[in-house]
Amino acid sequence: MIKKYYLLSPGPTPVPADVLSAAAEPIIHHRTSEFSEIFMEVTEGLKYVFSTKQDVFVLTASGTGAMETAVISTLCAGDKVITINGGKFGERWGQICQAYGVEVKEIILEWGEPYSKEQLVDELKANPDVKAVFAALSETSSGTVYDIQGYGEVLAQSEAILVVDGISGLGATPCPMDEWKVDVLVAGSQKSFMIPPGLAYISFSPKAWDFVEKSTLPKYYFNAKKYKKSLGKQTTPYTPAVSLIIQQKKALELIKSLGLEKLFEHHRILGDATRAAVKAIGLELLSKSPGNILTAVKVPAGIDGLKLVKTMQGKYMAYIAGGQDPYKGKMFRIAHLGYMGGFDIIIALSALEMTLSELGYEFEGGSSLKAAEDILKENWE
Amino acid sequence: MIKKYYLLSPGPTPVPADVLSAAAEPIIHHRTSEFSEIFMEVTEGLKYVFSTKQDVFVLTASGTGAMETAVISTLCAGDKVITINGGKFGERWGQICQAYGVEVKEIILEWGEPYSKEQLVDELKANPDVKAVFAALSETSSGTVYDIQGYGEVLAQSEAILVVDGISGLGATPCPMDEWKVDVLVAGSQKSFMIPPGLAYISFSPKAWDFVEKSTLPKYYFNAKKYKKSLGKQTTPYTPAVSLIIQQKKALELIKSLGLEKLFEHHRILGDATRAAVKAIGLELLSKSPGNILTAVKVPAGIDGLKLVKTMQGKYMAYIAGGQDPYKGKMFRIAHLGYMGGFDIIIALSALEMTLSELGYEFEGGSSLKAAEDILKENWE
Repeated sequence: MIKKYYLLSPGPTPVPADVLSAAAEPIIHHRTSEFSEIFMEVTEGLKYVFSTKQDVFVLTASGTGAMETAVISTLCAGDKVITINGGKFGERWGQICQAYGVEVKEIILEWGEPYSKEQLVDELKANPDVKAVFAALSETSSGTVYDIQGYGEVLAQSEAILVVDGISGLGATPCPMDEWKVDVLVAGSQKSFMIPPGLAYISFSPKAWDFVEKSTLPKYYFNAKKYKKSLGKQTTPYTPAVSLIIQQKKALELIKSLGLEKLFEHHRILGDATRAAVKAIGLELLSKSPGNILTAVKVPAGIDGLKLVKTMQGKYMAYIAGGQDPYKGKMFRIAHLGYMGGFDIIIALSALEMTLSELGYEFEGGSSLKAAEDILKENWE
Repeated sequence: MIKKYYLLSPGPTPVPADVLSAAAEPIIHHRTSEFSEIFMEVTEGLKYVFSTKQDVFVLTASGTGAMETAVISTLCAGDKVITINGGKFGERWGQICQAYGVEVKEIILEWGEPYSKEQLVDELKANPDVKAVFAALSETSSGTVYDIQGYGEVLAQSEAILVVDGISGLGATPCPMDEWKVDVLVAGSQKSFMIPPGLAYISFSPKAWDFVEKSTLPKYYFNAKKYKKSLGKQTTPYTPAVSLIIQQKKALELIKSLGLEKLFEHHRILGDATRAAVKAIGLELLSKSPGNILTAVKVPAGIDGLKLVKTMQGKYMAYIAGGQDPYKGKMFRIAHLGYMGGFDIIIALSALEMTLSELGYEFEGGSSLKAAEDILKENWE
């Protein structure tokens, strides 16, 4: 049989065909007015998605590069910070900080457990000298969304800044930077921004910018001040990934034409449909606070989770994500993020049904698809 | 919601992403050795799909242009022919012949009815002066495949030639030109050849070539002799669609790597799955001899067939085909042709289920998907 490849992972995500083909457009030099015009249109579009009046800087880097920029552009050696670690990416905040000699008070959560703003208030009371709190909007390893709005309210009352990893969540689930008082917000191009990986985005509140001015951690490529200075000249400090920026212009046109509110609703529908579908065949969610970015599902008892993921990815070429250590083989993750449609979920579920049936799991064939269809069809507007 | 466009029609058909992007390659001049190398590789690849040792000519035209080439390059004014008309495209053979003063004995079949080689024997006995028989491998308007092998056996015993419209069928269902004694075989690029529309292909047996030598019908652009002469110089008589030829080279690489036998089996599986699925929700096939190219399904009683097609195409953007006059509103057609995978069928069926449910048809939700999955998963190799 002809087998097509379906990207159903929480990054990279599918890219619209007209955005893909934009990469074949002639490469223009990045020190030209022609490039500057495209570049400024992109940064304006990014401000729309970030819901901020502040500058959004474009880094030629993966999302982790923007996370590092957030740390090293705002802090000083010996600063104390809180990191909320509910999975692989929460853990990464701590690792980056520690690499630069920042003292980390790490809040280690069970994967999928929420963390309330009240808990954060208590933690800050116990650690009044904290300079920053690092959180994730959506923890990609567990499919959990956190209460960024609540954390913003808490930190607005303190001297500390709130730094948020919005890499998988921004654009798919609400996180209005200015309104929610997020001080540093980080994003990546290969998620809801609907282009290939290679660009990362970052923005700083005025409060965070005071930190930037005082920051003494060593930095060069990831120095936010350089990006600000270059943006004043309508360009980037280093040669940017021109073709990706051209693609981002194209994809932002789509994003703006749909509108953020509709995109959130879109992801909500896909999330609802996926959750209802997996529950319909007796599967359990990993997260107690599941987001609409991806759905992490526990592998049912008696089923080989590694084989499940391998079969879906290898045989059916439905490239969902497996569980990351320590949940390897214990869960799998179906993304509904970025340029996905209702039928992408149907494909993921159909591949899941065929795989589960092959692995001997007992369920009523077609019933997860029926459950998803019921929600999709009600909302198909 | 984000809505993606799914091409599920029997032409144009989906084009692989790397074939699409090949269209963005620099356009080369068609009177260069560089082009000739590509062009000759394409014509060799076409011979493989046609299963012939004869030349296959590349026309920059739609499939109908190749049909016209078949008529006007082989016949003389006043010649008498038989056309087997089981639908829109069988009818077209007659219309082209009549436009050139060819006398047509038209065999008008109910759509979906087969036509046996024994019937053809009788028809030829009644019309011994016939110069050619025009048939279709797969009649796209009804999803019916005809017994080309049988017709070839019959005509090999006569002076007349067998001219076959392989536009939607060739490459998806067997029709080895030399072995089955097809005298003129016609194909189109936008079907199983996996590229966009714009190129048509035609090949002549030695027996047919004798007809070409004697043909007196007026012709210029569609003169087979010019294509033969130019092919000797490794080029085309008129400026060809260079980018499409470059794409065809790329797509033929995929076709050759899969192999014809596997492609036939692939289409057989998709056809079986689709037929089983629609039957599982109580729907009926139109054709008594359904092919694996597309499945024509009768609209169930009480359901508005025009609305069904409009909803699938417009709301769910699952672009299946409706019925053509006189079956408009009475049937719809799901293609499983060319670069389709198992999940393309799943998408078509899921859109069908959501649409039927919306239109008030009663059935068990998910059951068509289950039926398709059962066949797909058994065969997913």
